[in-house]
Amino acid sequence: MSEAMGVAVVGAGYWGPNLVRNIQNSPRMRLRWLCDLDVERARRVIGPYSTVQTTSSLDDLLEDPDVVAVAVATPAATHADVAMRALDAGKHVLVEKPLASSSAEAVKLVDAAEERGLVLMCDHTYCYTPAVMKIRELAHAGELGDIHYVDSVRINLGLVQRDVDVLWDLAPHDLSILDFILPSGVVPEAVSAQGADPIGAGRACVAYLTLSLTGGAIAHVHVNWLSPTKIRTTIVGGSRRTLVWDDLNPTQRLAIHDRGVDLSSADNLGDQARREMMISYRSGDMVAPALVEREALASVMSEWADAISESRPARTDGRAGLRVLDVLEAASRSLEYHGATVPLRVDR
Amino acid sequence: MSEAMGVAVVGAGYWGPNLVRNIQNSPRMRLRWLCDLDVERARRVIGPYSTVQTTSSLDDLLEDPDVVAVAVATPAATHADVAMRALDAGKHVLVEKPLASSSAEAVKLVDAAEERGLVLMCDHTYCYTPAVMKIRELAHAGELGDIHYVDSVRINLGLVQRDVDVLWDLAPHDLSILDFILPSGVVPEAVSAQGADPIGAGRACVAYLTLSLTGGAIAHVHVNWLSPTKIRTTIVGGSRRTLVWDDLNPTQRLAIHDRGVDLSSADNLGDQARREMMISYRSGDMVAPALVEREALASVMSEWADAISESRPARTDGRAGLRVLDVLEAASRSLEYHGATVPLRVDR
Amino acid sequence: MSEAMGVAVVGAGYWGPNLVRNIQNSPRMRLRWLCDLDVERARRVIGPYSTVQTTSSLDDLLEDPDVVAVAVATPAATHADVAMRALDAGKHVLVEKPLASSSAEAVKLVDAAEERGLVLMCDHTYCYTPAVMKIRELAHAGELGDIHYVDSVRINLGLVQRDVDVLWDLAPHDLSILDFILPSGVVPEAVSAQGADPIGAGRACVAYLTLSLTGGAIAHVHVNWLSPTKIRTTIVGGSRRTLVWDDLNPTQRLAIHDRGVDLSSADNLGDQARREMMISYRSGDMVAPALVEREALASVMSEWADAISESRPARTDGRAGLRVLDVLEAASRSLEYHGATVPLRVDR
Amino acid sequence: MSEAMGVAVVGAGYWGPNLVRNIQNSPRMRLRWLCDLDVERARRVIGPYSTVQTTSSLDDLLEDPDVVAVAVATPAATHADVAMRALDAGKHVLVEKPLASSSAEAVKLVDAAEERGLVLMCDHTYCYTPAVMKIRELAHAGELGDIHYVDSVRINLGLVQRDVDVLWDLAPHDLSILDFILPSGVVPEAVSAQGADPIGAGRACVAYLTLSLTGGAIAHVHVNWLSPTKIRTTIVGGSRRTLVWDDLNPTQRLAIHDRGVDLSSADNLGDQARREMMISYRSGDMVAPALVEREALASVMSEWADAISESRPARTDGRAGLRVLDVLEAASRSLEYHGATVPLRVDR
Repeated sequence: MSEAMGVAVVGAGYWGPNLVRNIQNSPRMRLRWLCDLDVERARRVIGPYSTVQTTSSLDDLLEDPDVVAVAVATPAATHADVAMRALDAGKHVLVEKPLASSSAEAVKLVDAAEERGLVLMCDHTYCYTPAVMKIRELAHAGELGDIHYVDSVRINLGLVQRDVDVLWDLAPHDLSILDFILPSGVVPEAVSAQGADPIGAGRACVAYLTLSLTGGAIAHVHVNWLSPTKIRTTIVGGSRRTLVWDDLNPTQRLAIHDRGVDLSSADNLGDQARREMMISYRSGDMVAPALVEREALASVMSEWADAISESRPARTDGRAGLRVLDVLEAASRSLEYHGATVPLRVDR
Repeated sequence: MSEAMGVAVVGAGYWGPNLVRNIQNSPRMRLRWLCDLDVERARRVIGPYSTVQTTSSLDDLLEDPDVVAVAVATPAATHADVAMRALDAGKHVLVEKPLASSSAEAVKLVDAAEERGLVLMCDHTYCYTPAVMKIRELAHAGELGDIHYVDSVRINLGLVQRDVDVLWDLAPHDLSILDFILPSGVVPEAVSAQGADPIGAGRACVAYLTLSLTGGAIAHVHVNWLSPTKIRTTIVGGSRRTLVWDDLNPTQRLAIHDRGVDLSSADNLGDQARREMMISYRSGDMVAPALVEREALASVMSEWADAISESRPARTDGRAGLRVLDVLEAASRSLEYHGATVPLRVDR
Repeated sequence: MSEAMGVAVVGAGYWGPNLVRNIQNSPRMRLRWLCDLDVERARRVIGPYSTVQTTSSLDDLLEDPDVVAVAVATPAATHADVAMRALDAGKHVLVEKPLASSSAEAVKLVDAAEERGLVLMCDHTYCYTPAVMKIRELAHAGELGDIHYVDSVRINLGLVQRDVDVLWDLAPHDLSILDFILPSGVVPEAVSAQGADPIGAGRACVAYLTLSLTGGAIAHVHVNWLSPTKIRTTIVGGSRRTLVWDDLNPTQRLAIHDRGVDLSSADNLGDQARREMMISYRSGDMVAPALVEREALASVMSEWADAISESRPARTDGRAGLRVLDVLEAASRSLEYHGATVPLRVDR
Repeated sequence: MSEAMGVAVVGAGYWGPNLVRNIQNSPRMRLRWLCDLDVERARRVIGPYSTVQTTSSLDDLLEDPDVVAVAVATPAATHADVAMRALDAGKHVLVEKPLASSSAEAVKLVDAAEERGLVLMCDHTYCYTPAVMKIRELAHAGELGDIHYVDSVRINLGLVQRDVDVLWDLAPHDLSILDFILPSGVVPEAVSAQGADPIGAGRACVAYLTLSLTGGAIAHVHVNWLSPTKIRTTIVGGSRRTLVWDDLNPTQRLAIHDRGVDLSSADNLGDQARREMMISYRSGDMVAPALVEREALASVMSEWADAISESRPARTDGRAGLRVLDVLEAASRSLEYHGATVPLRVDR
């Protein structure tokens, strides 16, 4: 146990306990502190049997030389501030989604981490589920062919948040997954968002996001706090194969369909004839690959520990968090302008 | 059988055979003609055992005094022409969706039918499924409360049509259902559409439609020809209850959830406190009502026969078809302008 | 059309109309007669547009020289009599399941058909579904390895029959499928049945059938008229792969799992150690093969026509029907003796 | 925390960690010891952060006066011995299923606990799921009417156990649930079991259990270690309503169907006419009641703590465990005799 790296968690609210549990289960890490402004809450999370220390003071853990890494699970508005203090104290940092409240803040964090040679990782948890890791592997290896469309639905009866709308609450999941799985060279180029607040909550409770991707593909996200049924399904349509990921179907999370519409080239024909001949239909088998069952957050901890010990960026690093924020900000602008298309910088 | 009304069907393609079968099964009707430019195709549809006459000439049936009503299932581009000729010949008319290729044509048909005192009905088949009739009944009776959102997904590996995009091919179903179930006073006020043609088919193969409804509600439609999985699910979210209609689940097509987010008035509180207090969550039972199993097209035939014999407009009359065309045309304009919001006339 | 073989259908009750429709759709056949003691019922089935003749007299069609084949869909008690008269008149015969009311009767039919060189086919419809044909193909080709167990559930709210119990009403489906798919050399050797009549209907409404198969495998059938949910699922467990057939899931009727428990030989070890080492687990992919969509009864008609024109036994011939009856009779005896195991003759 | 009762857990294998976690989460209990012959395993379960003591000696905790209750999760063969030592030391006891290896042992435990006035509880965990508690409530309140049949399927790819067959491994769940939900006066009167060992594991890997219940009802259990698909579905058919419990469908675990076959009395009719008239069909709605989400084991701990502090038998007390063992022993005898029906004592 002596070589395990000392870690502290800041924030004992909704997500903090999951970090606490997974860090405690990791043989690579040693949890030293749980910090929350409400220290009683921190104590309840740690429970009556634990030797882990609790505090309401960030300084306690930042000053602890045995703490080399800090996981931040405070309210989103404070992410940037807490993370920057940790970086300034020379700690590696893991931050809940979203990385910060704005891309401007996120840029500062990314720069600070790079200057100091520290790992800044975003806890894009879904990217570390066995299903999404498999999707990335297939998409990057060309098994799906060109990506034609991505359709993501994430709806449930959800807590209407006080500080953010449904887009900022739920879409970071879909956008970070999209960022993770899209093959190199395919990025969102523009975004349009439509939303509604039919219950008068003061912010969008239902929202639809459309992204134009490089090369004419389309991505679409439906997020909704008002749905009595829970749906978490993402379809990744490709020219060779199409994937359906149903996160609520534990016995068949991933289905890879060898079905689709094919367009073959037919250069020596007239336009109309060509088009008719070009279209054909494949109706092949479906394969549901065996997936290892592993809690995503355990893989997050492994990746964080690996990135730190290998002095390399994590798979979902600060830049990935920044790209997600860019889309979210553009989506908010589009929402304000009733769905107007907002272009995205594609140089990050 | 002498009192059954004489009927002719024009068009023996994809949908015609269904009309033929249902008219033959209706005790109120007597099928006299099946007409198709390709008379051999008409003969194949009728089969070797039938006494029904076939022809390639529309005149044959329009001149038959025993034919009082004509069902039109020709390609969409010819709907207006065939229907107008039938109306001019004094026949009642049933037309496949869409009613015509343009709202201008549709207006002429509506006017012509009203002038002549003839029934002009749109075959919005889905409106006559037991599930949709139940949804309309519940929505109109206030059982759902105010409509908050409608989300409709209709995706499958589909025939890429030569003459129309996926919006004109599939969305008429969703739009006619929406028109049918929305309570009086709630109508689409603006529409925005996003689409993609990732296979280079020359027209949108994936499309998303967003409609702003009276009072801040939202309706959204996802239509897609490229999906290897078939989904036909519509969620109707209301302030009192929320309905989920899954047309592919024969044992539980309709689920009525007594779950949702409630906002109660709290006039004497400050803004923030009020908002927090106002929101509460219901987590009640789900009821799947028993539905009669009846083929929708059989109910279409009953309604058509009733409307004719009672000299009244059909439930899905020409004006309903026209309202659907208005939305489709606006959606096409929006698609052209990359999702720009297009307002709708709300006076029809 | 002149070469199509003339066919007659006897029985216009529950199943007859399906035979009528499929014979009419077959280019190989020409339906000449529909016979029912209640000739009005026959007329209603034929409909007002048809040129097919109806009669209440079996002689009419047996004496018609253009009728070469007769399909029998009368009540089960009369199958043997009607079929025998048709065979005596030199007609090929297709009989609904069960082939007869007793194996004694069935033997006579089989003998009569063989003596006269006529095709006697059982309408074991399910055997001709694309799913079951695929299962047979895989099982016979060894793709499943040794068959370990077959578990079949066929439950629904069903019509409590007056003349037969739930075993005779529903289990013929499962038994004929079992007969069809089991590889050569694997047959039922003994049967045990348990049942209950909790509503006091006078006959078993719920029943469970257990069959010992050659080589230590087991087959089990659950049939039930009292279930409010409809389940039609068969699992075929093999040493190499296991199949799950869910007939109510049109988008994934067949799932082939490369998962299972393996036992490898380990001859040089002690008993206990050997056993522990021998057991290992496979957790491979699942494949849902693409299946052609074709109505089973259309394939029944093709097979019947082929068998007649090629003068060969049909795939589900009289002997298959006889084997099913043998099991049913043994099951009834077991039911009477509260589940006592009844051995089966294995020589047919 | 001073009033929380001191508890020890014996056994740190498969189930022990769940007990440890739930006892630690219970405000009514204070976990003092985790005991396992392999003390390293106990330490791993407790984890590096805990203040809970570990030991390989049962005496350590039996001699601790602060331990008032002991939870036993050792291998089944040792249940009786460990439990008896704990009772002899004056501790209340919770025992994993099955209560003991034989009913003879179980009787001794029941007697010992009653003599000493100690709580002897069986951890029939499933009985404490919200779904099963709801089923019991409905069945006992007469909402289902008379119980007609119970059909329980519990199949999955499972660990082939060294010491017990699939019946003893899995059926205790189904039998304890059955014992829990059946209304007073309805008990199993006889049992028949069929099994198979198609992989040559040395014990049954697939088994079917049929129980005759008081009044002509039937219960059936299918347990299977070799199934690649996981099914956990129980149907409870009643004269008024029928319940379907699908434990793998978190969004709709319980469905209450108002569908069924009714038999009304018709005393003044002849036998045949009476029977025909008596049968009618209901086709009403289905209701999926909202269930609280609570981990069953948390409810087990509450019930255990309540029973101890109120000096009353637990809901699933030693006698319930004994009744389950009676059925299991009879089932094993039936299995030996190829499915022969074995009567049960009905006086417990």
